[in-house]
Amino acid sequence: MPHYKLTYFNLRGRAEIIRYLFAFSGIKYEDHRIEQADWPKIKPTIPFGKIPILQVDGVTLHQSLAIARYLAKETGLAGQTPLEQALVDAIVDTTDDFMSMFPWGEKNQDVKQQIFNDLLTNTAPGLLRDLESFLGDQKWLVGKTVTWADFYWDVCSTTLLFLKPDLTDNYPKLLALKERVQALPAITAWIQQRPKTTL
Amino acid sequence: MPHYKLTYFNLRGRAEIIRYLFAFSGIKYEDHRIEQADWPKIKPTIPFGKIPILQVDGVTLHQSLAIARYLAKETGLAGQTPLEQALVDAIVDTTDDFMSMFPWGEKNQDVKQQIFNDLLTNTAPGLLRDLESFLGDQKWLVGKTVTWADFYWDVCSTTLLFLKPDLTDNYPKLLALKERVQALPAITAWIQQRPKTTL
Ligand SMILES: [Mg+2]
Ligand SMILES: [Mg+2]
Repeated sequence: MPHYKLTYFNLRGRAEIIRYLFAFSGIKYEDHRIEQADWPKIKPTIPFGKIPILQVDGVTLHQSLAIARYLAKETGLAGQTPLEQALVDAIVDTTDDFMSMFPWGEKNQDVKQQIFNDLLTNTAPGLLRDLESFLGDQKWLVGKTVTWADFYWDVCSTTLLFLKPDLTDNYPKLLALKERVQALPAITAWIQQRPKTTL
Repeated sequence: MPHYKLTYFNLRGRAEIIRYLFAFSGIKYEDHRIEQADWPKIKPTIPFGKIPILQVDGVTLHQSLAIARYLAKETGLAGQTPLEQALVDAIVDTTDDFMSMFPWGEKNQDVKQQIFNDLLTNTAPGLLRDLESFLGDQKWLVGKTVTWADFYWDVCSTTLLFLKPDLTDNYPKLLALKERVQALPAITAWIQQRPKTTL
């Protein structure tokens, strides 16, 4: 088993999907959390200057979803067939496209609040309606078993629900899916033990 | 071999990486190009309301990069090992993050031009420097053989160079990589025969 070292801020953010995959699979890793204040001196040492990164023995992987997909394939959570894997990837990217619309780093708090409100109130319902309809009466988003697309829904919706607690009130199937993910024993345990952060 | 039907606008845009993979592998597909005027009536019939989609026998795949990765795996262009595949995915997502910063649909032409100029002049050099340094003296971005990350660099940079013809002047290795991709006989042939569009 390689030595895995994950580097990110002390946030769930873009690293939490990776931490879910480690938690679920039981693979040991170093969950290295850096201080925001140290980021400017660390950034130039990292390929492409962004975190999370995952160091796998000598190799540095970047891009949260590329890292997550790598771990999902290693642990059987990527989808059972090539077509299922493509659907998993598509659901993840569709969810991620929405998360990436938020101006997380915007300094002007009025501007930030206004865009956040607009996305949560006017844009989110379209995505949630489509995801709910894609899920339908299936237990998991793609195929017969849990995949990292289900994990990503839980990770992202946890942050969205922190921002807008009634966000999923009209989407009972998506809410039930979230509960199923959080009821997986390794995920339940991880949520209890992880550092508490707002994002 | 399944029947493949690709649906997109008559643009390179987000479908061109998929067309490159079909061209390179020689797999037959239907390159269905819709008129912009027909999009409003087609959009509600498409899961998640975005194109490109790829119909594979009965299954509809969405999200351009998920579709491209599916084809890349089918045709041996996804990377030779799990770690190489993760690096390919990461390079693709890093390139795509930059392409996604452009407000392609902005109606106000002054605003659009100003943001485009800022991205091309001030943001692009950081990405190009990092990509050039990642490539180094290798022939291809990841591993010993061509992958869809190389194709994606060519596809995206073709559009970027249309917008700013001197964009890659300081990045001779990236420019040489682009030439290597375009010199692959199946890609040369596709570029000659494809419908000519600006984007
Ligand atoms: Mg995307
Ligand atoms: Mg991304």
